[in-house]
Amino acid sequence: MVVVMNLSAGPEHIAAVKERLEQNGFEIHMIRGVKRLVIGAVGDRQVIDSLGLEAMPGVERVVPIMKPYKLVSREAKGENTLVKVKDVVIGGRELVVIAGPCAVESREQLLNTARSVRRAGARMLRGGAFKPRTSPYSFQGLQVEGLKLLAEASAETGLATVTEVVDEASLELAMEYVDMVQVGARNMQNFSLLRMVGRSAKPVLLKRGLSATVEEWLMAAEYIVSEGNENVVLCERGIRTFENATRNTLDLSAVPLVKELSHLPVIVDPSHATGNRRLVAPVSRAAVAVGADGLIIEVHPDPARALSDGPQSLTPEEFDSLTKQLGTVAAAVGREFSRGE
Amino acid sequence: MVVVMNLSAGPEHIAAVKERLEQNGFEIHMIRGVKRLVIGAVGDRQVIDSLGLEAMPGVERVVPIMKPYKLVSREAKGENTLVKVKDVVIGGRELVVIAGPCAVESREQLLNTARSVRRAGARMLRGGAFKPRTSPYSFQGLQVEGLKLLAEASAETGLATVTEVVDEASLELAMEYVDMVQVGARNMQNFSLLRMVGRSAKPVLLKRGLSATVEEWLMAAEYIVSEGNENVVLCERGIRTFENATRNTLDLSAVPLVKELSHLPVIVDPSHATGNRRLVAPVSRAAVAVGADGLIIEVHPDPARALSDGPQSLTPEEFDSLTKQLGTVAAAVGREFSRGE
Amino acid sequence: MVVVMNLSAGPEHIAAVKERLEQNGFEIHMIRGVKRLVIGAVGDRQVIDSLGLEAMPGVERVVPIMKPYKLVSREAKGENTLVKVKDVVIGGRELVVIAGPCAVESREQLLNTARSVRRAGARMLRGGAFKPRTSPYSFQGLQVEGLKLLAEASAETGLATVTEVVDEASLELAMEYVDMVQVGARNMQNFSLLRMVGRSAKPVLLKRGLSATVEEWLMAAEYIVSEGNENVVLCERGIRTFENATRNTLDLSAVPLVKELSHLPVIVDPSHATGNRRLVAPVSRAAVAVGADGLIIEVHPDPARALSDGPQSLTPEEFDSLTKQLGTVAAAVGREFSRGE
Amino acid sequence: MVVVMNLSAGPEHIAAVKERLEQNGFEIHMIRGVKRLVIGAVGDRQVIDSLGLEAMPGVERVVPIMKPYKLVSREAKGENTLVKVKDVVIGGRELVVIAGPCAVESREQLLNTARSVRRAGARMLRGGAFKPRTSPYSFQGLQVEGLKLLAEASAETGLATVTEVVDEASLELAMEYVDMVQVGARNMQNFSLLRMVGRSAKPVLLKRGLSATVEEWLMAAEYIVSEGNENVVLCERGIRTFENATRNTLDLSAVPLVKELSHLPVIVDPSHATGNRRLVAPVSRAAVAVGADGLIIEVHPDPARALSDGPQSLTPEEFDSLTKQLGTVAAAVGREFSRGE
Repeated sequence: MVVVMNLSAGPEHIAAVKERLEQNGFEIHMIRGVKRLVIGAVGDRQVIDSLGLEAMPGVERVVPIMKPYKLVSREAKGENTLVKVKDVVIGGRELVVIAGPCAVESREQLLNTARSVRRAGARMLRGGAFKPRTSPYSFQGLQVEGLKLLAEASAETGLATVTEVVDEASLELAMEYVDMVQVGARNMQNFSLLRMVGRSAKPVLLKRGLSATVEEWLMAAEYIVSEGNENVVLCERGIRTFENATRNTLDLSAVPLVKELSHLPVIVDPSHATGNRRLVAPVSRAAVAVGADGLIIEVHPDPARALSDGPQSLTPEEFDSLTKQLGTVAAAVGREFSRGE
Repeated sequence: MVVVMNLSAGPEHIAAVKERLEQNGFEIHMIRGVKRLVIGAVGDRQVIDSLGLEAMPGVERVVPIMKPYKLVSREAKGENTLVKVKDVVIGGRELVVIAGPCAVESREQLLNTARSVRRAGARMLRGGAFKPRTSPYSFQGLQVEGLKLLAEASAETGLATVTEVVDEASLELAMEYVDMVQVGARNMQNFSLLRMVGRSAKPVLLKRGLSATVEEWLMAAEYIVSEGNENVVLCERGIRTFENATRNTLDLSAVPLVKELSHLPVIVDPSHATGNRRLVAPVSRAAVAVGADGLIIEVHPDPARALSDGPQSLTPEEFDSLTKQLGTVAAAVGREFSRGE
Repeated sequence: MVVVMNLSAGPEHIAAVKERLEQNGFEIHMIRGVKRLVIGAVGDRQVIDSLGLEAMPGVERVVPIMKPYKLVSREAKGENTLVKVKDVVIGGRELVVIAGPCAVESREQLLNTARSVRRAGARMLRGGAFKPRTSPYSFQGLQVEGLKLLAEASAETGLATVTEVVDEASLELAMEYVDMVQVGARNMQNFSLLRMVGRSAKPVLLKRGLSATVEEWLMAAEYIVSEGNENVVLCERGIRTFENATRNTLDLSAVPLVKELSHLPVIVDPSHATGNRRLVAPVSRAAVAVGADGLIIEVHPDPARALSDGPQSLTPEEFDSLTKQLGTVAAAVGREFSRGE
Repeated sequence: MVVVMNLSAGPEHIAAVKERLEQNGFEIHMIRGVKRLVIGAVGDRQVIDSLGLEAMPGVERVVPIMKPYKLVSREAKGENTLVKVKDVVIGGRELVVIAGPCAVESREQLLNTARSVRRAGARMLRGGAFKPRTSPYSFQGLQVEGLKLLAEASAETGLATVTEVVDEASLELAMEYVDMVQVGARNMQNFSLLRMVGRSAKPVLLKRGLSATVEEWLMAAEYIVSEGNENVVLCERGIRTFENATRNTLDLSAVPLVKELSHLPVIVDPSHATGNRRLVAPVSRAAVAVGADGLIIEVHPDPARALSDGPQSLTPEEFDSLTKQLGTVAAAVGREFSRGE
């Protein structure tokens, strides 16, 4: 850490900062600049925030040098983490495609979708049973009935399943019926929920928050891992910017960046990122080319009848056409994707 | 609502859209432009999202005309809502100042702060007992002990109290000990939590999310009110932008805008907005001048020893100096603020 | 266009809006909603802005239906525009790679770079002679000497050249020495400059502004084309967002979106987008996979000695390694890239 | 400056960084952390960017300690700069109000506006003659005829005048006819234009760019001052964010922040910031309360007939009503504003 003193800092201010640092076990280096004193301090990154240095008289700012996360960092673990969901491994050489409807709406809708996405090469089935909707007047999900349908679809097709959880009650139910739980973008800093999924034994799909920095996203993962659950898959799904020609702005550069900073797998959600079905295929190809470990794509048998996210859902035919292109792109970047045909 | 058809929309696509609208009770107006057909549709705003129109073939986009919220809108209720918290009324002629530490840390810290902010004119005491922190390694709050200290401080000073709740357990405890519960910025779209506070009888302080539009913020309030709790106070606390010279970017224009769109009171948090104690006083004056119904300000007896948010906390002396200036600014815009001296 | 009247609009306000629309040749459709009147108006998109409707009493807002650009739109021209720069065609089946240093620094630097990028498959050479730098104390470019070196490098290697112009004087010089002129991100709405390059006969590389929407970017292109110069290539180079883990946030979804909205070619600049040389290769692959017509990449023989943008510049070896991967990615999406070996 | 070496930096990398720093006159402090080496370097801030350190092998990142601007900084000059425009002083105790139409449209429009804003207490007249418009099909200004009308209005009313310049030709004309030139938001990083106005003798109104950080804004001012023109007034006019309920997001916290960092005066433009005439009055009051040195407000005799920016223009009556409130708000924060009655 580097502590920059301001121009008007007197000897008593400097002494006070020095004392507090030393009391907390930091080793100190005084660097006298032309106008300012800068104090280099070597010690435990995790205690910096609680030192209150920035509020001390004479301190202009504090610049941390180390990253604030540790368990999820590449420095903590060099090799890639492989997250196993049922028999599916995320983070290895194989590109994993997750597909399914935004919301589980009916038995017929879900099973038809499950069968068709499986034929097209998906290894996992997505489907929301507890829907966090912007409006209280929108469809809020089938709840436990939705979970049961996911379990049934999984039993029939062999697909592993993932569903979003939003609180303790939904998590408890999901534990019973699905293979992986998702923490949605709007709950990425719902620390109470992060702790709960961290204490569970389920793999977790952690979506990036709409306005979360890469660092905050990794800190959210750190919450989960620090509770003992190392099976975290990160999902880039677009961030909020001034541009509204697409629903969000997909930050694909974040994928190789996060893989450099962390050992956790990273997948991409082109459906929420763009909000536009015509952009899902090209953006999926880009996600594979940039190095994502997988994709999560919304598919609905009749998007115009979808109770949620119809405009960004692919039809089974469109999804089938998309996965046909993925193998060559994956191969071009040293990955594998097979439709299993 | 207006449905814009794209250039390649054929008669069968138009007929399908027309049919769906009519089945859902909409009255239809066909507007043939030079190149495109536009369909004006009059009906229930709340069902638009579930119609799936944007996913229908031939549809380019759907433009809603009405706002998506109703209970919180000015159209639903012309006069200002007054929210009563113990004996304090927020939303009336009097400017209400809430002050206190970011986190409750100890009996001495809280009681000393409570006494001094009361002397300086604060009507309510803030203090966090359940702290949602970006890092799992930061101080997470005193939990129920913190709530008890808030109740004790309230009993001694007469100040009404507000504290943040983060889940069902913390809400249940807070119901017992404090006068108002806060939903924090990071939980603004934690719809499960919004419903819970909506079903409670406590007044709610609803902070704007870091990347929430004004519309989403009002929709979050709609969640609470639609569950039966009309006592919602909105709090502008800065949004996330590219600028990082301040912690967040305070959107003061949103205050008069929201007061035009909604009947709910709006207060401002200059501490979180700026993250810089030197900016708290001028920004507080601006908030009053723009028409805010109140302020919520972080005050700590020793900011450099604060376990959270020290850099943006005022000392009791700084707070005292600030409130001395508020009366004249309030008077200049037709409001009242008295330090009770 | 749709004009939404507010709740308090009286008959005289409605009559005035109607009159103004009719005087300007619009055909009118009155749509009476439950609470509001909405006026559909069919006419010339280009005059809407000058009608002043939003400032008329009783008007709540005006929603344009048509896009504000016409010459650059897909509706104006269905087939893709091919921009020819010397013997290089941008926008066709071949992926065009432009490479070179941020700034031209010396004869040796430029010629060495030109030779090496040519060997690696680049078809065009980039190099700045007039550098728009954030600080007045930074290196500002070699000016006309830089242009002469570009011409020399082109003569020797056969590479076509592109350089940024910043005002009338630099444009006049560039006209003489290079094959394509670039309008930089910071000048994307320097309308005076846009008109000048529009009146020139040179192909133009138009970078997206840091905070430009897709629509504003296309309007900037419209400025150029409306002056008679149709040879415009758009360049996505990242936008400014809250995320600062990368220099900018590359908006790759904008590539297929713009190609749907416009007939102009679109290339991608992974160097400025990421500001990080380690991310340039994966992001380049993603840009090709998403459908970009080309790439513009910073290459420097000794990045640590570069006078500008060293951290994001590839060495010739890194660039060579990158282009070796592009052919298979290009082929996977139906494009061609050959290193000419 | 602090140079953070990465984990894999070897002795040869460290030696190379050390050598380059010492060659450039920096004094060096080696700080060995638990895992990383950090090098503190004391020397000339202005040369950091050209050292290329971030591109050197083994370097993780470079953290500058000093600000990159010097001439405009508070450290360079403690007392406030007073900018004199004709007989008006900006930056002193008096709040200066500038008002007038977005664009000069006709003799009658301008003179009527000038007379009415003068009566209401404005000291300066604004009016655009060269309009940078997003669309090439929008009204582009009266050019030199507009300037002549500004001069005539000034002669009659005694108001000082300000107009936007966009290139060399418009600057040359403006030099002759007006008292202050404005560099608009879209040209804030048009460094060629900044240098030109810096070499002129006219006071300059420098608007903040739509996506400019406070630091970049001050660097733009540094460009002007470094050319010899110290008469720069900064103007906060809103930045671009995800929120589009207002035209821009006014960053009022930036006003006291900039006044702390720099000695230059800062004024606020509530018209462009909000884009909504109903918000102009409350936001103007807030700007005064936060400490702005002045306001620039759009006023038009008939906003619904304005050729530009009608929705955000006040009528003369609305402006008159606004300025009546400014005196008491100004007084409440120790400033003066008199309507001269």
